[in-house]
Amino acid sequence: MCVNYEELIPQFRSYLKKMTDYHSAIALLEWDARTHMPKKGIRGRSQAIATLSGEAFRMSVSDQMASFLDQLESQQGSLDQVTARLVEESKKTYERSRKIPPDRYEAFVALTSEAESVWEVARGENDFATFAPYLEKIVDMTREFVDYWGYEGHPYNTLLDQYEVGMTVSVLDDIFSGLRTETVMLLNKIEKKPLVNTGILERYYDPEKQKAFSEFILREMGYDFEAGRLDETAHPFATGIADGDVRITTHYYPNFFNAAIFGSIHEGGHALYEQGISYELIDTPLHSGTSMGIHESQSRFWENMIARSYEFWQCYYGDLQKYFPESLGDVSLDQFYAAINVVRPSLIRIEADEVTYNLHIMLRYEIEKGLIGGDLAVKDLPEIWRENMRENFGIVSPTDSDGVLQDVHWSGGMFGYFPSYALGNIYAAQFAQALERDLPDLKDRVQHGRLPEIRQWLGQNIHQYGALLKPAEILKQVTGETIDAKPLVSYLNQKFSTLYHL
Amino acid sequence: MCVNYEELIPQFRSYLKKMTDYHSAIALLEWDARTHMPKKGIRGRSQAIATLSGEAFRMSVSDQMASFLDQLESQQGSLDQVTARLVEESKKTYERSRKIPPDRYEAFVALTSEAESVWEVARGENDFATFAPYLEKIVDMTREFVDYWGYEGHPYNTLLDQYEVGMTVSVLDDIFSGLRTETVMLLNKIEKKPLVNTGILERYYDPEKQKAFSEFILREMGYDFEAGRLDETAHPFATGIADGDVRITTHYYPNFFNAAIFGSIHEGGHALYEQGISYELIDTPLHSGTSMGIHESQSRFWENMIARSYEFWQCYYGDLQKYFPESLGDVSLDQFYAAINVVRPSLIRIEADEVTYNLHIMLRYEIEKGLIGGDLAVKDLPEIWRENMRENFGIVSPTDSDGVLQDVHWSGGMFGYFPSYALGNIYAAQFAQALERDLPDLKDRVQHGRLPEIRQWLGQNIHQYGALLKPAEILKQVTGETIDAKPLVSYLNQKFSTLYHL
Repeated sequence: MCVNYEELIPQFRSYLKKMTDYHSAIALLEWDARTHMPKKGIRGRSQAIATLSGEAFRMSVSDQMASFLDQLESQQGSLDQVTARLVEESKKTYERSRKIPPDRYEAFVALTSEAESVWEVARGENDFATFAPYLEKIVDMTREFVDYWGYEGHPYNTLLDQYEVGMTVSVLDDIFSGLRTETVMLLNKIEKKPLVNTGILERYYDPEKQKAFSEFILREMGYDFEAGRLDETAHPFATGIADGDVRITTHYYPNFFNAAIFGSIHEGGHALYEQGISYELIDTPLHSGTSMGIHESQSRFWENMIARSYEFWQCYYGDLQKYFPESLGDVSLDQFYAAINVVRPSLIRIEADEVTYNLHIMLRYEIEKGLIGGDLAVKDLPEIWRENMRENFGIVSPTDSDGVLQDVHWSGGMFGYFPSYALGNIYAAQFAQALERDLPDLKDRVQHGRLPEIRQWLGQNIHQYGALLKPAEILKQVTGETIDAKPLVSYLNQKFSTLYHL
Repeated sequence: MCVNYEELIPQFRSYLKKMTDYHSAIALLEWDARTHMPKKGIRGRSQAIATLSGEAFRMSVSDQMASFLDQLESQQGSLDQVTARLVEESKKTYERSRKIPPDRYEAFVALTSEAESVWEVARGENDFATFAPYLEKIVDMTREFVDYWGYEGHPYNTLLDQYEVGMTVSVLDDIFSGLRTETVMLLNKIEKKPLVNTGILERYYDPEKQKAFSEFILREMGYDFEAGRLDETAHPFATGIADGDVRITTHYYPNFFNAAIFGSIHEGGHALYEQGISYELIDTPLHSGTSMGIHESQSRFWENMIARSYEFWQCYYGDLQKYFPESLGDVSLDQFYAAINVVRPSLIRIEADEVTYNLHIMLRYEIEKGLIGGDLAVKDLPEIWRENMRENFGIVSPTDSDGVLQDVHWSGGMFGYFPSYALGNIYAAQFAQALERDLPDLKDRVQHGRLPEIRQWLGQNIHQYGALLKPAEILKQVTGETIDAKPLVSYLNQKFSTLYHL
């Protein structure tokens, strides 16, 4: 067959563009469902999302897609970089999806959809026993899928690969074991120090002013409100609807300072990534973050390394006091800085501080690895959870609701996702080290609110590439290294040694 | 071929459901574009809308659709009422769309898209000459399409039929000529009376309070906020996104009372229609208003016949004064009632009162009929407009911006749409007559805020049917009559004779 490659590539791009349009519509349908949709819209909304998702899925596994991939792969050597990556990514999706028998995939979707509702009730009622049979089925089906997909080394590797291309159990075991030791050592030292007063964070903070200050800081970071917006939802998130439309949400608690401001900055970090992707990649699946870990590195970098730094508040604390004179007028910069950086072992992952956060992830990682590897049974999870908490955190959750039932991920079958959060912290520290190498006066810049210069560096070094480069490639290009927890350990030791006078 | 009809109907319904999901997504993409979308989202948004619209269009003219229609039509006698109407409607769309060569349709879409931008500038700069060549091309292409579609009687009939099934030039000529005579007679009498003071409507009305009062009245009407919401846009509209999600918008002017409140009630009338459609019709194209004219009858009925009635404000004026004590505290109910019902010939259609509004429509109707019939030339429109204004309104627009250029419709090629507005007024009066027949104490009910009882009557008699019954059918069923302007004339004569002491 004679193939005209000059026509083939535009046809392939146009096919991908159509899929992008579906995904863009889905993203808006989901955003609206969480921000503005009236209650009774849920039936029609779920149905519209299911229809469009089904259509996008069918396009990704169609014979037309197979034909594009076959023809383009035969020309692999002569393809431009973008097309080559598009072929590689599309092929990966195609193969993964085609390996699962459609009836098994549908059964999995139905199971997880039901399991999410069951989990929600079970968490509310501290009732692990009701959720357990669902979780068992989800684990069984996930293991079945892993067999369909195949794997090298540990079966969990193929799940990790979905969220972080190339990540493996042996890399994570190695990384996490060092990080755990260092974290526990640091924690032990901190726990000997006097408690920090965090009551000031629980004073009254007018939600309208929290919103105004969040917007102010987002503008300072370089978030483009002409290509995005900030709304309120129960659980904050960022979503890229289209290249000029990357939205974030946060949540305002009148009596808790941290959630909205650091939530906005965190989601703003995600959004800057999406807003910074090269125009060359629009209307393709590469116009997105390259992995969950790299995405999380951007949100964590802004939230912790910038917005929880002393220099940041040297610049902005005066502004903040003007927004909340009654609650912060009598609080010194040092008191405030100590309060927002308090380290304290706690039960709930999403409320954890920078130091203990990764321990929460390691607990989940060990459990997932055990479940997928067949070394752990679902019924034993509550006890395993308590033991691990006792050993690593020195505290025990009185209920499963605040223990093994606290996260939604497993009910949705998202095994392999949790490590992304810790990877985000690790990458963020590696990137931060490279940033300080390139801009030695970084602290001085932060202190003077020169945040757009940081955004520019991230844009040039990370954001613009979208998913054109893989996580390990981008890490190598920016830092010259492979993944390494040492920069994170050294960042944490340095920051908290100073703060706690260790 | 052996066809299994028991399977065929569910398959056809499932095919239509998928199209409904596309339309639902498109409706949300458009709503969001007008309410919340950041500026730079427009490129991606337009593209996503185009992709989904194209897909829905392809489904409506596909070979699969043809096959459904062929098979189902052969069983026409034995089909249930809903399926029979679904086949009829789908067939109509299929045939209309298939008759236009795709390249001509694409050329028309491109032309009108460009023309809308040209029109916007031309209106801003009072420059008809720049817009004229576009309008000429649009008229030419519309006439070409009319030839493809075919027509009976006047070529304009096939355009009317798009918005109001079965409506014809001969019916409209007849209806409008009587209505014009009566309107002009009424106007002449009113113009001899002293001017009404409308200055009170231009006092300060806090937009937040306008919003609160709009929401209050919408709740009184029975608009379900769990199946809808009220937002602000430059131009008010109502949109049915799904069966439990019918949204409306309005616009708040701090120094003009009428726009937001009556705008909300008008759009609320549209929304009650969509919220009241039978569950039996969801996920089909019949889950919508049956025509533009019937839709407009619902909005006009609530806006004018209810919310501009004396009884309505006997009930709610006290509430209104509490919302705006500074602007309305010194205004009597009678003064307020006279001001919101002022009759005064004016240049702009969308600002016109109940009496003169239909004259604006007739002017446009005569022009459209002439253009499509080949009796009028685009270049002569400004002069024709001025002459008609002089003759019927006794005033002349100093600019084309406030004359022939004021409406967007023609730039979008929407010939045949304008009559719907007048039909809405006519139908509304016919329905109101039937309502008073069924509920003789209607005025008393309004006076006591028993609006849900009115909503219920509309629901049972009109709303529930969606597009299952055609306009003429629903009119016959409710009133026992065909279209007739006499109830409107008598309503207007009665209302304004009392108000103006004629």
